Amino acid sequence: MQNPFFKNNGPFKVANILNILNLNNVNIDMEQNITDIKDLFTSKKNEITFFHSKKYNDIAKNTKASFCLTTENLKNNLPKHCMPIIVDNVLVSTSIITAKFYPDSINDNFDHTVNEINDTEFKDKIQFGKNVLIGKNVKFGENCLIGHNTIIEKNVSIGNNCSIGSNCIIRNTFIKDNVKVLDNCVIGKHGFGFFPNDTKNLRYPHIGIVIIEDNCEIGCGSTIDRGSMSNTIIGKNTFLDNQIHIAHNVKIGQNSIIAGQVGIAGSSIIGNNVKIGGQAGISGHLKIGNNVEIAGGSGVIKDIADNSKIMGYPAKYIRDFLKENK
Amino acid sequence: MQNPFFKNNGPFKVANILNILNLNNVNIDMEQNITDIKDLFTSKKNEITFFHSKKYNDIAKNTKASFCLTTENLKNNLPKHCMPIIVDNVLVSTSIITAKFYPDSINDNFDHTVNEINDTEFKDKIQFGKNVLIGKNVKFGENCLIGHNTIIEKNVSIGNNCSIGSNCIIRNTFIKDNVKVLDNCVIGKHGFGFFPNDTKNLRYPHIGIVIIEDNCEIGCGSTIDRGSMSNTIIGKNTFLDNQIHIAHNVKIGQNSIIAGQVGIAGSSIIGNNVKIGGQAGISGHLKIGNNVEIAGGSGVIKDIADNSKIMGYPAKYIRDFLKENK
Amino acid sequence: MQNPFFKNNGPFKVANILNILNLNNVNIDMEQNITDIKDLFTSKKNEITFFHSKKYNDIAKNTKASFCLTTENLKNNLPKHCMPIIVDNVLVSTSIITAKFYPDSINDNFDHTVNEINDTEFKDKIQFGKNVLIGKNVKFGENCLIGHNTIIEKNVSIGNNCSIGSNCIIRNTFIKDNVKVLDNCVIGKHGFGFFPNDTKNLRYPHIGIVIIEDNCEIGCGSTIDRGSMSNTIIGKNTFLDNQIHIAHNVKIGQNSIIAGQVGIAGSSIIGNNVKIGGQAGISGHLKIGNNVEIAGGSGVIKDIADNSKIMGYPAKYIRDFLKENK
Repeated sequence: MQNPFFKNNGPFKVANILNILNLNNVNIDMEQNITDIKDLFTSKKNEITFFHSKKYNDIAKNTKASFCLTTENLKNNLPKHCMPIIVDNVLVSTSIITAKFYPDSINDNFDHTVNEINDTEFKDKIQFGKNVLIGKNVKFGENCLIGHNTIIEKNVSIGNNCSIGSNCIIRNTFIKDNVKVLDNCVIGKHGFGFFPNDTKNLRYPHIGIVIIEDNCEIGCGSTIDRGSMSNTIIGKNTFLDNQIHIAHNVKIGQNSIIAGQVGIAGSSIIGNNVKIGGQAGISGHLKIGNNVEIAGGSGVIKDIADNSKIMGYPAKYIRDFLKENK
Repeated sequence: MQNPFFKNNGPFKVANILNILNLNNVNIDMEQNITDIKDLFTSKKNEITFFHSKKYNDIAKNTKASFCLTTENLKNNLPKHCMPIIVDNVLVSTSIITAKFYPDSINDNFDHTVNEINDTEFKDKIQFGKNVLIGKNVKFGENCLIGHNTIIEKNVSIGNNCSIGSNCIIRNTFIKDNVKVLDNCVIGKHGFGFFPNDTKNLRYPHIGIVIIEDNCEIGCGSTIDRGSMSNTIIGKNTFLDNQIHIAHNVKIGQNSIIAGQVGIAGSSIIGNNVKIGGQAGISGHLKIGNNVEIAGGSGVIKDIADNSKIMGYPAKYIRDFLKENK
Repeated sequence: MQNPFFKNNGPFKVANILNILNLNNVNIDMEQNITDIKDLFTSKKNEITFFHSKKYNDIAKNTKASFCLTTENLKNNLPKHCMPIIVDNVLVSTSIITAKFYPDSINDNFDHTVNEINDTEFKDKIQFGKNVLIGKNVKFGENCLIGHNTIIEKNVSIGNNCSIGSNCIIRNTFIKDNVKVLDNCVIGKHGFGFFPNDTKNLRYPHIGIVIIEDNCEIGCGSTIDRGSMSNTIIGKNTFLDNQIHIAHNVKIGQNSIIAGQVGIAGSSIIGNNVKIGGQAGISGHLKIGNNVEIAGGSGVIKDIADNSKIMGYPAKYIRDFLKENK
């Protein structure tokens, strides 16, 4: 993934990393630089990764990372070029180190870089309402409209002919051309991702962004979270109704139609020409094929093949569902 | 339906209409005026209508319209006084022509007619918070309250003794007396109605309004869309909880109670004294009778007779549902 | 319950109370003072209570109240020290009298006590965005952040190291330390509680508050209503995702994780270490034990024992549900 917005504050020396984790008796060259933190699969030489469950044995064996946060029990599955760093709680340590590399991606406090639009370069370029705020690193194409009280926080690029409603908050987002975002939306905040901990959960970084392709419409009061390690994407000419929640890392294809109050959980992938009825819910990490129709109110808990029409909770073929529920 | 707000930009000459659709070889008097566009049933002499499916054969035979957007296959079902205009895609052409008659009803961009309330005639008539904006063609009765950051966009009439919360956006809406609208509501935006198209969906016009009768209460974060060809109506003394979505053309009766996160899809009609539990969903184009009780979480997909108590998805008699689900 | 915010406007003389109810031929000492109104169980000497259904016979027999709004049929169940006041509709009369004692707890009109934060004592104490409004009787700890357009209405106490997002509205709420409230939340408004009435429902008072304990996070667009006669509580280190609705009097334990679009109806009690999947709904007045896992989309309609894993609507053991729904 290209990550255009979040600055990697690395590299950090090994000594620095170990110090943060309160570790000292480890047999490593303390002066080596660690350049980034990634998952087992995508990490490369001089980078650090994490390995916390034997589920990932096969991927761990082939990691290219030079360092790995792991446990005594798992460390022998790592390749020789990958130095294990033994910790009590792998996920907590991972959270701490990722926060070190990407501090901006952990906290979504309000953006204090904003200015009133009248004090920015966009004053004469855009039609805008009252009390519009614009953050650092924001771009606009031609013929855009921004409604009252809307806050375009830092790291947003908006294309041509876009209409953003009133009371919206957008950050860390690419919006292409001819997109409409209706009132009261919140787009680009971090997802609901953290390592649970008994006293204070530890948020992990969300270095993905939200991408909204050409010709989309996003209904009132919707929330679209940015991705953690990949992007959240709404495909071309896909329309979302009101009060929809799209979680982090979700990818929706083109020409899809999603009715009111639908929720799509993290990392699910939705195909092209998909129709989803109101209040339907889709669990996380699923793959919904092309041309799928999901009836309103359905709860989808497994992958769905192309061209299926499904209904129910758990969702099944609509014909079967209606037969069983006469 | 009375349409008090949206201006019909017609009449347009036949030549003008054909030109927009890139048609020329049609045998019609080019100088005739077309005064309006309506559906097959309600359209009258000198108006244009549309006919895209044999489902509507019976209505088509009796239409009073003088012109009809239709196909080669369907045109012979029209009466003699109705001149067919043959197009490739009836719905797309309909969308294009309706946008011509009612351009304001297609786009819900932010209202640039608003002024700060301190600069309006309402300055001394209403109690209001900070940063309140008021659009063109807005009326207020006596003893009204308007909360902070609320935007009363154009074409809104509010009765006596109403209390509107903070961060609300209201347009194209009639609110009668003693109504409370709590914070963060969006009322009167166009519904989720459009003709799907592979490159860019075409919105059809929403020339209906929202009517909220006396003594209603609308909970925080709710969205009530205005109607397309009819009005969206909330009956007297009906109370809505938080985060409710009421789609376009829905009509709800009197003294009904609707709990949090309920969604009612387009064009459904709900009776008087209806109780709907939290998160229940009602599909579009249904008729729910008087005194019906719908349990929380239910999914209603067919008409429900007066005095029924229902539950489940699909919703059935609550007694049957609980027996089957011990 | 301690009620730190709502002022009891009493005591009122018996004559005054009877006058409001249009009663006069009652054999009571008109000069006696009535000090408060409470339910049958918690009311004490010199207070007034209400008794409207034989369901409450056992509690009524032992009430300590000196006065009771009730009916001719029920009055003989009251103890001798409790003087019955016979009315046509007990709940309506109760609503009228409680509104007399606690007028501020009935109406949630916008808070006109607010000032722009630059004009308050917090100007140099807090980091804040544009257009922040602060009401009467508000407190902040150290190192707090308040986002743009956010309204901290009257009667709010916020601890140390809290980050409140933009476009939020908070009132009648205690927020402890290290809490994050994301954008567009409405916290502390009255719940959806009223006595239905054919012409105008009568709201009953909400004299409870919202308490959010240390280390919590509240997702974007969530609504948390304050309690009616008890408090709404979110326990330590509990995280809520986006678009969640927590109704009045709900109590959630520690270290719980609640995914997007969940709704919890009034007065339910949720344990510690509970995980609730997206869009699940929990009916009112239920008790969900500790360490319970509720699958996304479930509808919970009965109490759930500790350590249960449940799914479905109505929710049952997840193993049973999946077996029945292969």
